[in-house]
Amino acid sequence: MTAYEALTPDVIQEFFDIAGRRVVVGEAINPDYAHDAMPIYGIGMPEVTIDVKTTEEISAILKICSTHHIPVTVRGAGTGLAGGCTPVQGGVVLCTVLMNRILGYDEANRNVRVQPGVLLADLQKDAAAHGLFYPPDPGEKYATIGGNVSTNAGGMRSLKYGTTRDYVLALTVVLPSGEIIRLGSPVSKSSAGYSLLQLMVGSEGTLGIITEITLKLIAPPKCHCSLIVPFRTLEEAVRAVPALRHSEAVPQAIEFFEKEMLTAIEAYLGTSVFPKEIEGETVGAYLLVTLDAASNDLLDESVMTASQLLLDASAMDVLVADVPMYLDKTWAARSAFFESLEYQYNLIDQCDVVVPVAALPEFAVYVDGLRAALPFDVHMFGHAGDGNIHIYACTRGRRGSREDLFAFKQAAAAFMEQLYAKAAALDGQVSGEYGIGFGKASYLQKSLDPVQIRIMQGIKEVFDPGLILNPNKICY
Amino acid sequence: MTAYEALTPDVIQEFFDIAGRRVVVGEAINPDYAHDAMPIYGIGMPEVTIDVKTTEEISAILKICSTHHIPVTVRGAGTGLAGGCTPVQGGVVLCTVLMNRILGYDEANRNVRVQPGVLLADLQKDAAAHGLFYPPDPGEKYATIGGNVSTNAGGMRSLKYGTTRDYVLALTVVLPSGEIIRLGSPVSKSSAGYSLLQLMVGSEGTLGIITEITLKLIAPPKCHCSLIVPFRTLEEAVRAVPALRHSEAVPQAIEFFEKEMLTAIEAYLGTSVFPKEIEGETVGAYLLVTLDAASNDLLDESVMTASQLLLDASAMDVLVADVPMYLDKTWAARSAFFESLEYQYNLIDQCDVVVPVAALPEFAVYVDGLRAALPFDVHMFGHAGDGNIHIYACTRGRRGSREDLFAFKQAAAAFMEQLYAKAAALDGQVSGEYGIGFGKASYLQKSLDPVQIRIMQGIKEVFDPGLILNPNKICY
Repeated sequence: MTAYEALTPDVIQEFFDIAGRRVVVGEAINPDYAHDAMPIYGIGMPEVTIDVKTTEEISAILKICSTHHIPVTVRGAGTGLAGGCTPVQGGVVLCTVLMNRILGYDEANRNVRVQPGVLLADLQKDAAAHGLFYPPDPGEKYATIGGNVSTNAGGMRSLKYGTTRDYVLALTVVLPSGEIIRLGSPVSKSSAGYSLLQLMVGSEGTLGIITEITLKLIAPPKCHCSLIVPFRTLEEAVRAVPALRHSEAVPQAIEFFEKEMLTAIEAYLGTSVFPKEIEGETVGAYLLVTLDAASNDLLDESVMTASQLLLDASAMDVLVADVPMYLDKTWAARSAFFESLEYQYNLIDQCDVVVPVAALPEFAVYVDGLRAALPFDVHMFGHAGDGNIHIYACTRGRRGSREDLFAFKQAAAAFMEQLYAKAAALDGQVSGEYGIGFGKASYLQKSLDPVQIRIMQGIKEVFDPGLILNPNKICY
Repeated sequence: MTAYEALTPDVIQEFFDIAGRRVVVGEAINPDYAHDAMPIYGIGMPEVTIDVKTTEEISAILKICSTHHIPVTVRGAGTGLAGGCTPVQGGVVLCTVLMNRILGYDEANRNVRVQPGVLLADLQKDAAAHGLFYPPDPGEKYATIGGNVSTNAGGMRSLKYGTTRDYVLALTVVLPSGEIIRLGSPVSKSSAGYSLLQLMVGSEGTLGIITEITLKLIAPPKCHCSLIVPFRTLEEAVRAVPALRHSEAVPQAIEFFEKEMLTAIEAYLGTSVFPKEIEGETVGAYLLVTLDAASNDLLDESVMTASQLLLDASAMDVLVADVPMYLDKTWAARSAFFESLEYQYNLIDQCDVVVPVAALPEFAVYVDGLRAALPFDVHMFGHAGDGNIHIYACTRGRRGSREDLFAFKQAAAAFMEQLYAKAAALDGQVSGEYGIGFGKASYLQKSLDPVQIRIMQGIKEVFDPGLILNPNKICY
């Protein structure tokens, strides 16, 4: 582990000279800055936090940190789920939430320039007001775009429209040295040397700090609707996915979840949208499918195609949600899963593996089979169409009890080992969209051969020879 | 420049022990192995060529080359246009054309595994026979897939379907050390550390040797047709592009070319498909547009939308090519552009810049304005919808004349400088799809800031500390 230098009053004064009252030191620091949405992956209090505002300011701060060998961790809204912005080594946290301006649309080339602290929800809304569409749609709408780029966030619509990576045209990045580089440009394709742009996407703040992002936008789909599809069992639900994914209906999203999860969410939200039984038979699991099309007639065709396919695959029924209010309620339930788990449980661990879509049934059935022997609840849901499954180990525990925390962490870790091993056996990967951060670094190490880890470490050293950026994340 | 060791008889014997009669030495070497399709970017005779067959064989050869510090350049079909596979430092050339097996389809997950020497034409045909579609469609159909991945080849359909990068799910790669790594896996998305997969795509054989490729396939479009669209002038043709690109017709391809180019091609192919005048007025340039759709009715709608838009943008006419033979002839003409230039001229230089699509008219008009003062012919065509324009400087010269070659190279270089400067001013990039290779390395250096070049060099050293792989390409 690298040894860092302590922050001296002189260095802190330099920060004040740059960012004034946006520099916060010591006990005045907001404790939220010590972790992301998964504090179980570690809590690390920074010594200084700075709510940064400009590229130049970040450059000046990084120069100082490089000179004095002080660790720097960048954070956005802190909604990450892998401990990616936890300042494990203390030092400085740079928070980008004040860099929340949408800098401008280039309608002729269909793109938008944003600062990294813009919230996903705000960008989606603003793009829509310009008659344009930003397809990536992670569940957490109050994440920052900078965070989305840093983790290559996926979300509901990646099945049809791809992940954040597919929409990043250009980035302004400050290197740990303080040097400012611009990667990419608003062109449709490029073969101009190693793609540093693609390398930066998904690098979780370990290679440089992203200070401006140019995103591709597309025309919004003309119309869409969702299908609520109850099944008797989880297995039947996920078995229907591969054929639907590749069908002519070309779904935008295929989500799955179990009845228990749904019941908990609806209790939490105080709504009741999904049927719990069909003709006297109890529902065990659901698919939630979104279809879009260029016209209502085409949408009707897709609905017919998908419905027939689902009923043939033993769906109990297919309910079409096309009224906006009903659609909103349906998806609000889906988007609130994590929030509802946080509300129900004190202790949560998670796994976000991705497997080839045809292997999803085997994986889901395997996880289901482990449940009975586990000392905690297991909730399982996610982007079935992508083979990307979120598995949560959850228990109530006594709030603040170290014994409970320790016991849970141990049991959850053993469970995680099983999940990652099974995913690997199915040619899957450690994370589909949450990233590696601090919480999953050991599993990444195990899943890749040492040569790949060595190359990743080598790349890290090229960008950040002093290893000051976001220490102990991903591979270092 | 790195100093390499000479090949000794002992080392050559080691190669024979591995690959037997597929090792060729000295004067028996096929002189084609000394360059790609642009010999003007340098000719370098290898000392040994090996038509490799397996990953393990390549690993064993690279171990030897690493130990003895011998340069190794990999080549596929040699159809590159940037001098990417020219063995500038001599040494060993590994040719992958015998690694031409399609290893198998995974229809449930919609992908195919291929060896790197499979030809694009063969893969496209074979996938179609399996009811599947491999969208990337570079003009050169007899390029290898390995070459396509190494340059992130784009082609005709990248406007709608993306470039080769978007279809690479996994790669087996041999590092210069002989270590074998597998990058990626057949999953739809991933956020599992730095994307070495994306870094390898477009790295032109400088970071590792690709020995197996897993490619995503999609369902083929149900129907398609092309529009032949004559315009009075080049400027009018390219001005019609941005609106068409973003229209509801969602074109698969928007190509442009000038009348002179077309006439030369048709003379070369002995066909006549395109109209040369409309109602007594001479045609100056063409757009060639492909539309596809899920049904004939939808295709008709797209044709209507696109045609109206084009006629409003001063197209002289819109001819619909939907009969297979007519379609084939039309696209055969487009695909033969480079071949026809090679046939007409002895000396050729080229530039493959990409600019934001809305800047294409300004760029094309600028290039056209330079023509009159130049001592060679300039042909200009390309993927207008992508803002990716191929500009060829061509002259007949006396075959084999060193004076003519020298004078042409100088004049062409001055022209290239102007083109790259203009593209940069429009926020464009040095190469849209041909790659950097040897021919464009100096322009890449000028187009990027030194910090980015330093990072690329650092990455190269991480993968290839002895700098033995494909020396003097891209950034080293």
